Amino acid sequence: MILCDIGNTTFHFLINGKHKKYFLDEKIPVFDDEVYYISVNEKASKKLLKNNPTSKNIEEIINFKTSYKGLGIDRAVACCSYEDIVIVDAGSAITVDIMEKGIHQGGFILLGIRSFISSYPKISKKLKFSFEKDINLDKIPLQTKDAIQYAMLKSIILPIKEVSFNKNIIFTGGDGLVLSKYFENSVYKKDLIFENMKRIIDANNCIA
Amino acid sequence: MILCDIGNTTFHFLINGKHKKYFLDEKIPVFDDEVYYISVNEKASKKLLKNNPTSKNIEEIINFKTSYKGLGIDRAVACCSYEDIVIVDAGSAITVDIMEKGIHQGGFILLGIRSFISSYPKISKKLKFSFEKDINLDKIPLQTKDAIQYAMLKSIILPIKEVSFNKNIIFTGGDGLVLSKYFENSVYKKDLIFENMKRIIDANNCIA
Repeated sequence: MILCDIGNTTFHFLINGKHKKYFLDEKIPVFDDEVYYISVNEKASKKLLKNNPTSKNIEEIINFKTSYKGLGIDRAVACCSYEDIVIVDAGSAITVDIMEKGIHQGGFILLGIRSFISSYPKISKKLKFSFEKDINLDKIPLQTKDAIQYAMLKSIILPIKEVSFNKNIIFTGGDGLVLSKYFENSVYKKDLIFENMKRIIDANNCIA
Repeated sequence: MILCDIGNTTFHFLINGKHKKYFLDEKIPVFDDEVYYISVNEKASKKLLKNNPTSKNIEEIINFKTSYKGLGIDRAVACCSYEDIVIVDAGSAITVDIMEKGIHQGGFILLGIRSFISSYPKISKKLKFSFEKDINLDKIPLQTKDAIQYAMLKSIILPIKEVSFNKNIIFTGGDGLVLSKYFENSVYKKDLIFENMKRIIDANNCIA
């Protein structure tokens, strides 16, 4: 079984426990094995299906109810089967979703760290900075490079803190590990999406 | 007396109580009256001085001490003469400065509202949105356009809330009025910089 998470920039495969990424405009292989996928990009889904026409879309078998209009399938898969949790997927955007008693309560979308970093110098060249990972968040900054990084981290951390004060948090995504360190009640699961995809497939196979 | 606040994009004049802005590449007048200015842009200062060589730089007469390295003169003027206050200047960037017992404690620099608005669609076209001013911040969002605006406002509001829990806040700048509405302990002073420039000039004239 091969898993594939199609995002806005890559096909992200899990093949025999190994990660393999292809950009959306790259050639993707024809696989012998069965492919299960999720996708937020219809054009890319078609590309996968062209080479691998029996690929199965997990969106069609997932059992996930929410009042949120237009929730990305990646966010649904990340939240699926948790009771009380905050799920933070920290990529180019940072999605934050709240589960309460097994029901999705909604969520919000913060700018990703890279987006913050590239936005400051567009305001003024003086606001260009390199991200350091050891900024002291307990002290009001006394120079510009700290003033920016403090603000950026607070802009990301405080909205997550506010909705997770009585809940545990699972971080995933490229910047998940860095961010998880600012939260005591958190774990980082690099492969949260793939793990949950597997869970959904297994549950579905039981039912079938 | 004419006041001038030179920023990164405009010369902002106060002439007989009336506001007049010129972009930095525009031609600026020769004034009969005395000009007092502050500037964060050296090239633009020279341009002002070329036409008005007797213009006085308030940076040379202000009495403002801080441990903050490289604090912009606009931020110093905005904070000057306050005892316990948080000053928020919400423009292209949002500077937040903290005064305690008349001493500047430092500050931080958030992205401005316009910067947030332009950054989201760069991540994905799906994240394009128009800013509405009546987003409910007490409810977890249930659709993407709310999810973005909620996150953007929380990213700005919560870091300011955290440092102002026992202090009053003065908002100024283009987005100051919009933001001040989210804070009970706040006032909006459109002309904070010019008011304080006048105060500094008056105090200096007394001493002289």
